[in-house]
Amino acid sequence: MRLATLRDGTRDGRLAVVRADGARLASAAEVAPTLQAALDRWEELAPRLRALSRDLDEGRLEGAPVEPARLSAPLPRAYEWIDGSAYLNHVRLARRARGAEPPPSLETDPLVYQGGSGVLLGPTDPLRLLDPAFGLDLEGELCAVLGDVPLGASPEAALPLVRLLCLANDVTYRNLVPGELAKGFGFFQSKPATAFAPFAATPDELGAAWRDGRAHLRVRALVDGALLGDCEAGPEMHFSFADLAAHAARTRALTAGTLLGSGTVSNADPSRGALCLAERRMREILESGAARTPFLARGQRVVIEALDAAGRSVFGRVEQEVV
Amino acid sequence: MRLATLRDGTRDGRLAVVRADGARLASAAEVAPTLQAALDRWEELAPRLRALSRDLDEGRLEGAPVEPARLSAPLPRAYEWIDGSAYLNHVRLARRARGAEPPPSLETDPLVYQGGSGVLLGPTDPLRLLDPAFGLDLEGELCAVLGDVPLGASPEAALPLVRLLCLANDVTYRNLVPGELAKGFGFFQSKPATAFAPFAATPDELGAAWRDGRAHLRVRALVDGALLGDCEAGPEMHFSFADLAAHAARTRALTAGTLLGSGTVSNADPSRGALCLAERRMREILESGAARTPFLARGQRVVIEALDAAGRSVFGRVEQEVV
Repeated sequence: MRLATLRDGTRDGRLAVVRADGARLASAAEVAPTLQAALDRWEELAPRLRALSRDLDEGRLEGAPVEPARLSAPLPRAYEWIDGSAYLNHVRLARRARGAEPPPSLETDPLVYQGGSGVLLGPTDPLRLLDPAFGLDLEGELCAVLGDVPLGASPEAALPLVRLLCLANDVTYRNLVPGELAKGFGFFQSKPATAFAPFAATPDELGAAWRDGRAHLRVRALVDGALLGDCEAGPEMHFSFADLAAHAARTRALTAGTLLGSGTVSNADPSRGALCLAERRMREILESGAARTPFLARGQRVVIEALDAAGRSVFGRVEQEVV
Repeated sequence: MRLATLRDGTRDGRLAVVRADGARLASAAEVAPTLQAALDRWEELAPRLRALSRDLDEGRLEGAPVEPARLSAPLPRAYEWIDGSAYLNHVRLARRARGAEPPPSLETDPLVYQGGSGVLLGPTDPLRLLDPAFGLDLEGELCAVLGDVPLGASPEAALPLVRLLCLANDVTYRNLVPGELAKGFGFFQSKPATAFAPFAATPDELGAAWRDGRAHLRVRALVDGALLGDCEAGPEMHFSFADLAAHAARTRALTAGTLLGSGTVSNADPSRGALCLAERRMREILESGAARTPFLARGQRVVIEALDAAGRSVFGRVEQEVV
């Protein structure tokens, strides 16, 4: 089952189910007005949403065409946005790019930070470049939407609490990062609002591609139509979503609707490219001594999507213009 | 006007208005079911909440007795919890306690971090000491509840968007902080769920004590009935709530209901004591070479409250037992 949120002028939009081919959707407001409302009572409402989804797939419901510009993020605002950094290749390159060492516990202790979740961007919302000196970068990453995770939950207990998966552009002002991290309290102004692809998918929607708490999909990013990277999201995700959720819940409970990010999907094989400009720039520096690829400029277009083995765009596209 | 949230078995509880003497409250569900719902349409609903509050004050509504154990945090879950560190004396002592230097921009660039906001504790909820080695500490601090703050808002534009003020116990596992900050991504496991005093007050409720974007109240903390500190919250708040809000909104908009913390209230005069144990311990080290005060132990009771010039407990008490 895939879900989306229709913009309707309210803060949380209106929940919709998406047809298997991704071309049409139908309002699910009769089951739950919003995605948060569905997540709040997931055990009870998910079967009813699945029934609605089948009605749409099997032609008993007509639905309406999917128009990405009419969709917001699946959760236009969320109670938490906890972002991991589970692809160690990304951590190593990103730290090297800013002259910092990865922590010695890199392989045993997940890196996570708390992001802002009050305003989340829809799939076609513009990317605001406030100042070219900020170094605007995209970051393609997968996210889990969690149910209620009790304090101290193990990875095994957390795994079935992955209610939905989705895809984000975790936008970063790269040049604001070093100064901010030097202050010691983590990211803040360097992380503007995160954007989301239109569809959230239940893990079973991925079939065999959902295993070991990882989504074995390809995630690709394009800038102005040119491929920046096409990476495998499964094998190099060092910590699974279950591991990340257990880490996040070690000292406090998490509420239903918590967004949990994988960190930028990244592969050690340079031929796969990268899902952020910082990695490409770091590779350029390693190869030739200087970064040639600039950060994003006004007028550029960013596309991010995740494909399954059949080539289906599982979450739809993030497609944003820099303004 | 003061507002509170009654536990009613739902995730967000039921909104109530509090009588001027703090002894009785009345459901405000006819105006807005929850505090978040009121904040979502504040301009329209606040006048109606004020009318209800006057009815209670003037005896036209009877209401029911305030029972703190039946109250949750004003917002049991919030879309963001952005915590500043505006009392520079606290920053200097806390950093010294962990052998770190304050950033050189301490006086010009506010320190803020993004905290978890999906599960917030009520005023009498127990404080969970998961492991005595974690070093459980209280932190008494004031918070603003914001309306919608546009991206790039100035302090002047942000000031009238302070909808409510409240009081928090921003609990910290002190011994988890150094290792976590060394990883570079800020606090996470070192910050368990934050607890809140029962009442949220509109700024005008503070009268002349609300000026320059600061709450000129005394905040005091007791552990097992012994005074830990009794600090003035106004004069030494280096950055006002308006400054902190503008800092937080520099690269993204903030949604209505965003919680913005002042950081631990702290005075340079040691005779005022401290509102966290870390500060007292640091002073002990400076005076005698060793910290004598231990972190919190199971069975201890913490009280935090804020008093106005007339001695009124503006937000009611945080009163928690360590379990």
